[in-house]
Amino acid sequence: MTTLNETHDPALRSWVASAHAAGTDFPIQNLPFAVFRRRGSTEPLRGGVAIGDQIVDLAELAQARPFSGRAAEALAAGSQGTLNALMALGPAHWSALRLALSRALREGTHEQAVVQICLVPQAQVEYELPARIGDYTDFYTSIYHATNVGRLFRPDNPLMPNYKWVPIGYHGRASSVVISGTNFARPCGQIKAPDASAPVLGASKRLDIELELGVFLGQSSALGEAVTMLEAEDHVFGICLLNDWSARDIQAWEYQPLGPFLAKNFATTISPWVVTLEALAPYRTAFTRPAEDPQPLPYLDSERNRAAGAFDIQLSVGLQTPAMRAKDAKAEAVICQTSYRHAYWTLAQMVAHHSVNGCNLQSGDLLGTGTLSGPTLDQAGALLELTTGGKNALQLPGGETRTFLEDGDAVVLRGWCEKPGHARIGFGECRGQVLPARTL
Amino acid sequence: MTTLNETHDPALRSWVASAHAAGTDFPIQNLPFAVFRRRGSTEPLRGGVAIGDQIVDLAELAQARPFSGRAAEALAAGSQGTLNALMALGPAHWSALRLALSRALREGTHEQAVVQICLVPQAQVEYELPARIGDYTDFYTSIYHATNVGRLFRPDNPLMPNYKWVPIGYHGRASSVVISGTNFARPCGQIKAPDASAPVLGASKRLDIELELGVFLGQSSALGEAVTMLEAEDHVFGICLLNDWSARDIQAWEYQPLGPFLAKNFATTISPWVVTLEALAPYRTAFTRPAEDPQPLPYLDSERNRAAGAFDIQLSVGLQTPAMRAKDAKAEAVICQTSYRHAYWTLAQMVAHHSVNGCNLQSGDLLGTGTLSGPTLDQAGALLELTTGGKNALQLPGGETRTFLEDGDAVVLRGWCEKPGHARIGFGECRGQVLPARTL
Repeated sequence: MTTLNETHDPALRSWVASAHAAGTDFPIQNLPFAVFRRRGSTEPLRGGVAIGDQIVDLAELAQARPFSGRAAEALAAGSQGTLNALMALGPAHWSALRLALSRALREGTHEQAVVQICLVPQAQVEYELPARIGDYTDFYTSIYHATNVGRLFRPDNPLMPNYKWVPIGYHGRASSVVISGTNFARPCGQIKAPDASAPVLGASKRLDIELELGVFLGQSSALGEAVTMLEAEDHVFGICLLNDWSARDIQAWEYQPLGPFLAKNFATTISPWVVTLEALAPYRTAFTRPAEDPQPLPYLDSERNRAAGAFDIQLSVGLQTPAMRAKDAKAEAVICQTSYRHAYWTLAQMVAHHSVNGCNLQSGDLLGTGTLSGPTLDQAGALLELTTGGKNALQLPGGETRTFLEDGDAVVLRGWCEKPGHARIGFGECRGQVLPARTL
Repeated sequence: MTTLNETHDPALRSWVASAHAAGTDFPIQNLPFAVFRRRGSTEPLRGGVAIGDQIVDLAELAQARPFSGRAAEALAAGSQGTLNALMALGPAHWSALRLALSRALREGTHEQAVVQICLVPQAQVEYELPARIGDYTDFYTSIYHATNVGRLFRPDNPLMPNYKWVPIGYHGRASSVVISGTNFARPCGQIKAPDASAPVLGASKRLDIELELGVFLGQSSALGEAVTMLEAEDHVFGICLLNDWSARDIQAWEYQPLGPFLAKNFATTISPWVVTLEALAPYRTAFTRPAEDPQPLPYLDSERNRAAGAFDIQLSVGLQTPAMRAKDAKAEAVICQTSYRHAYWTLAQMVAHHSVNGCNLQSGDLLGTGTLSGPTLDQAGALLELTTGGKNALQLPGGETRTFLEDGDAVVLRGWCEKPGHARIGFGECRGQVLPARTL
């Protein structure tokens, strides 16, 4: 587990002026990774690191050979068209590259001239998935989400008896994970009205979001090997935002007994920037359980996890309807605000549980946290919860209402960490827009 | 849908003598694909085609440039270390290569000298996965399996109301799909005894098999695109055997509400040989539903599917205990015999359903059929069913009994098609052995 070091010093200043702009997500204390190229170009994709409103082009920088040792190896790996090779190197390499970049971006560095010619404005680029995702696993780590959703189906017994023991997860679809900004058609599928005798094929009428964090895995583990709680975070490269779009009507009819399938696998959107655990170190927080709840089994427990296994990452969901967009391209209504600190299971517990049976984890695998609903209703990360199953419509500015998403609606997830005495660490945006369903 | 052509002629004879051996799985009418190298060598992996007890080394053959047009393109694609590129080319290319190989392997061909030097004995090779599997989806297409398993949990209402409408499927783990011959440790996980107040971490005591077929997808479909029933089989490259090892005690505790996870993702074994749909054409059979059952919704229905959407593939499960092995390395007890023709949903329906919501399918994706239990108990493809939930032990030759698998047990799946007037088309073997659990 990373402790604070010179890269976290809130007094650090970069020679990139925009890194000091008020509210920037990307000060010199953050340095998240993405894969990009100039928009509309045929340039090869390559890794980049955000600083203010710029990107350090890692492929360009690698040509100048500014670093040595592990930092140089990590820089070379980060120049490729996916970050899988960088992810595979492990935390000593990630940390060395972070330190080298932090030093090269500080005011007064002798490396400014070398790095300056490698900057690309974020406004000029397009992003791609940060990694070739081998497997995507979605967890269910918010007890508030599990309870809210369970109550809709089983009012007397909302939470399954296994919930407080098992970090529940299931496999999702890797092929349909898309990068922020990818719009997608409303999905079609079998839908059965409660009073109908048979299902019909139709466009989903209950299209929803799920506010999640995505976790990119770093070093691989071998088949048959269990990653322990002490090792777990060494297998985590970093965190992004994730919207697990969900068609609730398709889900309700298909999900028994093997779980959600077509209700989820038409699109899952992630943000381009992957924030490293090292950048998030100042925002670690204690992981605690109510005294009356069962404490985690030993393979899901560690002193470190109890002391600082959780992260206080602020999260919000913005909804932009076509009517809002017509008035102001940037208008949106915030429909949820919450924090990752409310999760019932930590990152380390997700990794340790996933591999306890010997399942092999691979560099570039993506884990979802599950919908990160907080304890109160306005902290719920899905419309299903915010509208109590579609019964109570959300009132939006301008008099509009929503139960579920309508065609043309765009959703923007945001995440950030902030507290006195520390630099703000932001995640950027995770955006997607719903297009009309294809004609049946 | 492929119709019979000259490659199916049962009178065809190959100059490879072992292609005529009684009971061979690989006559000239089959020509399945695998990826291999000489055992213990550092040779690159490459594609190969089985003929009798030999393999045509496609990389070696490609160097001689014996074919032209689509056959040559397919041969070049098949020379690579995975078959993904060949799978992506589509049925016209697969068919052209099959015809060219069939002609080059026939008695009297002028190509014998060119091909002969490209043969490698199967006894000298090791196999790897035929493709880089992007996503693995497991279906649930046997109504007998769904009913048998459902009855153990819900005696009064064994079959879910959606079963006869929805080809139920869920996402499995791609990283832990392994090739036949890979042994694996008994998985550990959370297990809760029915009368216990809390779960414990332990080695699974109810380790089971699932007899399935695996389906490798060929041409990709784009995100947002639905593959119709008429197009579906053009997206199927071929079929292999698949054993979906399952830890029933882990599964019972974890599976609600999101489906099986650690109970399944520790290992899934597939056979090396992928048999093409063209080779299986003589064994197509009508797909029918009992008149009292709902007929498939239009997006899951086609005249072709009704006429010949099913395949009569014979399947068996052999169990070899350590005691049997000590007496005779080849001894095994056949514990199940059934046929794929009993499935409630066809290959084409699996593909059409999977993409109806716009989910993109990719070359090299693997679909599992789900456990292919037939209508009677001795046709059940899992120990859970064969022993009625572990209550009635199987009696094995030599006086041994089994409810679930014990350490050292090996399981061998076999598949073949046979009928008068047609060549036997075999799948080879899918084998795995259970090693002791790691020490906790």
